[in-house]
Amino acid sequence: MPRIALLLEYLGKEFCGSQSQANARTVQSELEQAISTLLRRQTKVTLSGRTDSGVHAAGQVAHFDLVETDLEIELAGDLWRLTWALNGILPGDLSVVCGQIVPDDFHARHSATARQYVYRILNRPQRSPVLQDTYYFYPYALDYKKMTEAAGFLLGRHDFGSFRSTNSDRSTNICTVMTAKLLNLGEGRLEFWIAADHFVYNMVRIIVGTLIEIGSGERAPESLASALQRSDRNLAGPTAPAWGLTLASVKYLESLGLFENKNTREITEATLADI
Amino acid sequence: MPRIALLLEYLGKEFCGSQSQANARTVQSELEQAISTLLRRQTKVTLSGRTDSGVHAAGQVAHFDLVETDLEIELAGDLWRLTWALNGILPGDLSVVCGQIVPDDFHARHSATARQYVYRILNRPQRSPVLQDTYYFYPYALDYKKMTEAAGFLLGRHDFGSFRSTNSDRSTNICTVMTAKLLNLGEGRLEFWIAADHFVYNMVRIIVGTLIEIGSGERAPESLASALQRSDRNLAGPTAPAWGLTLASVKYLESLGLFENKNTREITEATLADI
Repeated sequence: MPRIALLLEYLGKEFCGSQSQANARTVQSELEQAISTLLRRQTKVTLSGRTDSGVHAAGQVAHFDLVETDLEIELAGDLWRLTWALNGILPGDLSVVCGQIVPDDFHARHSATARQYVYRILNRPQRSPVLQDTYYFYPYALDYKKMTEAAGFLLGRHDFGSFRSTNSDRSTNICTVMTAKLLNLGEGRLEFWIAADHFVYNMVRIIVGTLIEIGSGERAPESLASALQRSDRNLAGPTAPAWGLTLASVKYLESLGLFENKNTREITEATLADI
Repeated sequence: MPRIALLLEYLGKEFCGSQSQANARTVQSELEQAISTLLRRQTKVTLSGRTDSGVHAAGQVAHFDLVETDLEIELAGDLWRLTWALNGILPGDLSVVCGQIVPDDFHARHSATARQYVYRILNRPQRSPVLQDTYYFYPYALDYKKMTEAAGFLLGRHDFGSFRSTNSDRSTNICTVMTAKLLNLGEGRLEFWIAADHFVYNMVRIIVGTLIEIGSGERAPESLASALQRSDRNLAGPTAPAWGLTLASVKYLESLGLFENKNTREITEATLADI
């Protein structure tokens, strides 16, 4: 029976993270409940990876399997009817952007080749009601040039042991960072984008906590390079708050062509042309 | 005693509009309550104009007067301490971006020379949890070129009687539109910006409702020009939902230099340079 991959968007505010746990509202449990309601049987989903309590996603990926009795579901093309029906059941802070039939050996976590995160900072004197759920409000002066300089040290293959919170997971600390850049969107809005083949626990939030200390002049840009030389959590800065962080996308082999048509079902190419 | 102008930002979702009314939570009442708490006396504020229930603001303007007994408030420069203290009292969905001492004859409503609104539309197949509070979700195909063509007819001086909801206000329907443009931000995000010296009741939302009918092919771009020729509400489209609309800014005489330094108190010019 076919395996289905789903592209998920969620606002992390009211979720106790992505992964199922007892007595807590999570992305996985809400998604499983909606699919189970639709298919009229208990269904399990697998996510590409865990996002912490309060962290958002614009491009989380999940997979699940259909069984023979689910055949009434229309499976043509981009699973338009399935995603539309799911969004009618899911709560407002979680949606399926699109779905796609994938090979049986596709695995949302194991098949992922890279992940990209964005951390948003509002760096202006006063807080913003509109941006408060997705931006970390930091009112004090930041030197963006120093932060950009420090971000450059992250590129390449390093041991990120200094940028890892203590936890039971024993996976490697070696990560290869492909993108690490700070964007100034104006009006005090900053975005820090980072892509890597692998992330250790709380890595992005500790990197951002360190970059903010560098921007505020508490430490030198070079101190980030030093922290990468040794695996010592004390060499990095504090963990920045969860609500600034968004899982932007998960990358898979290009040959899968995953979610390439996510915005083109109803909207024709002609209307997508620049206006 | 000095008159103070405040620049306000709010998320309209939980407000019954901006203007004070009995037994309803409004922007004006929350602001008056916060200022009254701070100054330890009943204080009235005047807003630049009314925003409907659910409508947001990035640049609403209010004014109020200090009295002699308020002199303990530090009044130097950009009212840094006053705005900071107010944001500590105000609820999360309302904030003061900055404040400024203005001439005694300044009036938030009467001194305004123009207002600018932005209406946000999410035009993609599936809804977005992150954008749901500030974007109107419209999943069906829209022809942006036709909408842009129609928006062009709005420019200049016209009678907007066709784009006005019935209400008791007897002000003129004649408005001069300086800006009317559709921006395609990508990923299905559209912004319609409109600036005018005067707006009639529900004008932006009725214009957007009409533009969406044009984009979806239900009516021709020229029908908007026809609606401007006669003052007949039946010639325009439906009123688009409130939550897509944001009061972006209110314009005053440039000589006032109002809120020119809104983001430069803690953040120095050097750090604002492009990174």
